[in-house]
Amino acid sequence: MSLQLPLPAWFREWVATLPQRLEYDAAAMTVALEACRRNLDGGTGGPFGAVVLDGKTRQVLGVGVNLVVFGQASVLHAEIVALTLAQQRTGSYDLAAGGRDVTLYSTAEPCAMCLGAIPWSGVNRLVCGARDEDVRAIGFDEGDKPAGWSDLYRRRGITVTRDFLRAEAVGLLERYAADGGIRYGPHD
Amino acid sequence: MSLQLPLPAWFREWVATLPQRLEYDAAAMTVALEACRRNLDGGTGGPFGAVVLDGKTRQVLGVGVNLVVFGQASVLHAEIVALTLAQQRTGSYDLAAGGRDVTLYSTAEPCAMCLGAIPWSGVNRLVCGARDEDVRAIGFDEGDKPAGWSDLYRRRGITVTRDFLRAEAVGLLERYAADGGIRYGPHD
Repeated sequence: MSLQLPLPAWFREWVATLPQRLEYDAAAMTVALEACRRNLDGGTGGPFGAVVLDGKTRQVLGVGVNLVVFGQASVLHAEIVALTLAQQRTGSYDLAAGGRDVTLYSTAEPCAMCLGAIPWSGVNRLVCGARDEDVRAIGFDEGDKPAGWSDLYRRRGITVTRDFLRAEAVGLLERYAADGGIRYGPHD
Repeated sequence: MSLQLPLPAWFREWVATLPQRLEYDAAAMTVALEACRRNLDGGTGGPFGAVVLDGKTRQVLGVGVNLVVFGQASVLHAEIVALTLAQQRTGSYDLAAGGRDVTLYSTAEPCAMCLGAIPWSGVNRLVCGARDEDVRAIGFDEGDKPAGWSDLYRRRGITVTRDFLRAEAVGLLERYAADGGIRYGPHD
């Protein structure tokens, strides 16, 4: 018995080719979008990608894609994969250890689970592409989020930027829907 | 690069000795409490344990303890460990596949992340020991949960039983606090 969650071969190989630093927000979100696109090409999961980086040095700490179906684990949303890989790389469950600034780029606003997970990881800046309503529009359940969550984040010291490259993110959601991809999640 | 999250030796060895079925709620919660107690004895994590079982056959599908510090991964709450191990065992991210009833016993009310994660897993019954306020009382941050979450769960077809063996769960929280255990989580 062990918790070994597989990563697709394309993912490991592609991540190894990425730049070590991504200077601008647009570059970081573009990598998250490209991760998402390759996940659709590979048929390895849902239309979501994420990147975690050091907000000061701009060093990439982790990249993630949705691997719920590939890994048969409902926790494997893109944000969780990126954050957990970043924690393995830094050797700490707290990415903010040592005073690090930590930015998470996600191609879509986090679901209820990821919203709860982000403050535990050490992230202090969240940049999102597609809106919650865009994700629901293709049939995904985003869960029950606390009202005014971005204000609650701000009180915790986490700033939120929305609608960043939203059109590109929505394009990938729509491609997934058009291809008839699985909308796992709700049971009702 | 891979997502390999270690499990403590005591945990693997002890879980192998457990009964395959736990007929009563008290028996299942007692295993969750015992997992928690052994986690404190082993110094492998926070004061939380969880058990997932098939609500009809009463077969144990997964057991979990908090491994945030041991595994250096902030996602490794007891509920996530138990649910993910159950998904690996059943081979499906959806524990409700095939019409299975799925009960999750947790020694404490779930934090915001686990509250979001539970509906994605296929659980349709949640049984909790300690209350949110008991967990906060020893210094843990439970996160920002949606108002009236147990009603929201009910609407999703997930029933909630609270205060089940609460005193026993609180005893373990207090032991952890008295021993000076790490309260990871909040950064503010």
